[in-house]
Amino acid sequence: LKQDSLNVDCAHLMQNALAGNRRALAKLLTIVENDEADGQIVLAQLFSHTGQAHIVGITGSPGSGKSTLVNSMVRELRKNDVKVAVVAVDPTSPFSGGALLGDRLRMRDLATDSGVFIRSMASRGDPGGVAHTTRGVVNVLDAVGFPIILVETVGAGQAQVEVAQVTHTVVLVEAPGMGDDIQALKAGMMEIADIVVVNKSDKPEAQRTVQAIRSVLMLHEQRMADEMNDVSPETINSHKAWSIPVLMTSAINGQGIPNLLKVMGEHQKYLLDSGLWQVVQRRHVRAEIEAWLQRKIQAWLQTQLGKQSLEAAVGLVLTGEQSPVSAAQDLFNKVIAGTKKI
Amino acid sequence: LKQDSLNVDCAHLMQNALAGNRRALAKLLTIVENDEADGQIVLAQLFSHTGQAHIVGITGSPGSGKSTLVNSMVRELRKNDVKVAVVAVDPTSPFSGGALLGDRLRMRDLATDSGVFIRSMASRGDPGGVAHTTRGVVNVLDAVGFPIILVETVGAGQAQVEVAQVTHTVVLVEAPGMGDDIQALKAGMMEIADIVVVNKSDKPEAQRTVQAIRSVLMLHEQRMADEMNDVSPETINSHKAWSIPVLMTSAINGQGIPNLLKVMGEHQKYLLDSGLWQVVQRRHVRAEIEAWLQRKIQAWLQTQLGKQSLEAAVGLVLTGEQSPVSAAQDLFNKVIAGTKKI
Repeated sequence: LKQDSLNVDCAHLMQNALAGNRRALAKLLTIVENDEADGQIVLAQLFSHTGQAHIVGITGSPGSGKSTLVNSMVRELRKNDVKVAVVAVDPTSPFSGGALLGDRLRMRDLATDSGVFIRSMASRGDPGGVAHTTRGVVNVLDAVGFPIILVETVGAGQAQVEVAQVTHTVVLVEAPGMGDDIQALKAGMMEIADIVVVNKSDKPEAQRTVQAIRSVLMLHEQRMADEMNDVSPETINSHKAWSIPVLMTSAINGQGIPNLLKVMGEHQKYLLDSGLWQVVQRRHVRAEIEAWLQRKIQAWLQTQLGKQSLEAAVGLVLTGEQSPVSAAQDLFNKVIAGTKKI
Repeated sequence: LKQDSLNVDCAHLMQNALAGNRRALAKLLTIVENDEADGQIVLAQLFSHTGQAHIVGITGSPGSGKSTLVNSMVRELRKNDVKVAVVAVDPTSPFSGGALLGDRLRMRDLATDSGVFIRSMASRGDPGGVAHTTRGVVNVLDAVGFPIILVETVGAGQAQVEVAQVTHTVVLVEAPGMGDDIQALKAGMMEIADIVVVNKSDKPEAQRTVQAIRSVLMLHEQRMADEMNDVSPETINSHKAWSIPVLMTSAINGQGIPNLLKVMGEHQKYLLDSGLWQVVQRRHVRAEIEAWLQRKIQAWLQTQLGKQSLEAAVGLVLTGEQSPVSAAQDLFNKVIAGTKKI
């Protein structure tokens, strides 16, 4: 892999994308998303341009109204002439086409605004690769100069862990109502949230939900304090821990959105002032290197093994001659024999 | 790794678990779940006992009432004196403790029934490993003789893909109501469902939801027909494709549960009669070997790399001397140098 081996078309796309051409940007993202050799070169070459954007994850269950919230946030940012990119990882998001017609119509005008760029990810069928591909797309959007990048993900299972691997600030969106919501909080979604939003604040139960979340949060306040211990003392300018705010919004009529954007800015400032911004950047870079390495090892493994060896192993297991563990051990021994320690 | 190197305590636990001792079974599962060397030996030794159970995934969004449904299914099976195991991968499930007190109380009596075994998985913080660990636990429960194993997962993102990797039959649970539910269907949850259940059938919208799902399903009927093409003609005894049924249940008062169990049995019979059962078994074994191999490679990678090499690479990236891709490529080159093709 030589950094200079980018073909002329690709180099051209990159120049045009950096100059603000949206169509070139879209094509570039497709190259990066498909993880071709060219995509790796593009990311390597754009890397020096990254590190400027505030990357914000917007996560929550289906039904919390997070797509409508993202929509309102984009409109508010545009009112203030701030450019913004949206990456929809959530397969149920209207941004990725999984919406009722009405939702899509409501956000159609955004598509013609040159200060907004929306990208939806094909998240299914790529186990383990969602965070990795998302990171690539986010890096490109960062490099071409979007100061704010909103990453919309469904807040369940692994996605909730992965969103923290690619963002600086995580906004957890909840709809009013007890029961499942609070279960989800207990189950740990709260552990990754930097800001909690109770959306649909016009509903009568909203205030009660805010109170319930605040009491759950009191148990979690220790988290950031613990995280501060990872930062060497000299990089910390402020020792005040971040206290997770619980905000109310009504995305449908725009209430609370300016305040949410203000608090997001405060969280970014907090990260920068406290030295945690570098800690997060380091974590992102480490995760990115590890992901690339795993991917390369995986690809190498495919070529080393060949389909025959694997199918032969499957056959031995199906006839009862070997267990899956020992079949894997045999394959491992064959593949790894001859590697050296560095 | 020698298959005969299992220590005496472990061998004892295994014998007792096979003889029906619940406490031994619980300890054995912990060993398997923690993926220690002993766990691998246990799985290897128990493997010849597996392959008998009907493994059924129960998946759906939080709020669909799938935990209550699982609860009702267990009670109905016990009425007919069928032993059953439940594996709760869903972090919001009351079976894994993420529930309101009332839910847990309602199912407390199940814990004292020797024909029921409930295991909850620690699913968070183990990216990529959920399906793998779940499979280990399911294999043990299969080996010790549970004829039905219900795997409860949250139906979003990767989990929905993974559940198909460890089960024979996937039951998708939906609550009545349009909007998000239908979005989820469109987004592809339907692609893995063998049976769809509209739970909370007492709600007035239930019938409308059933109709909406049926119309979405008509677009998906091609799926099983396509899958049949993977089966060699001589293994197919019946060419009839499975037509995904849409059932109504009211888990809270037990309505529709006997019918659901009957249809689950029909799906098992369909797989066996059509030859698809072997196709599914082969797919499970292949996925299991691949998962073990990946895990072994991962562990090997950790020891080969050492923390220093990785941190040095992170440092080079942070100072702008390298991009993450090229840093990973360098690490890859160092680790892989000297391996040979098999």
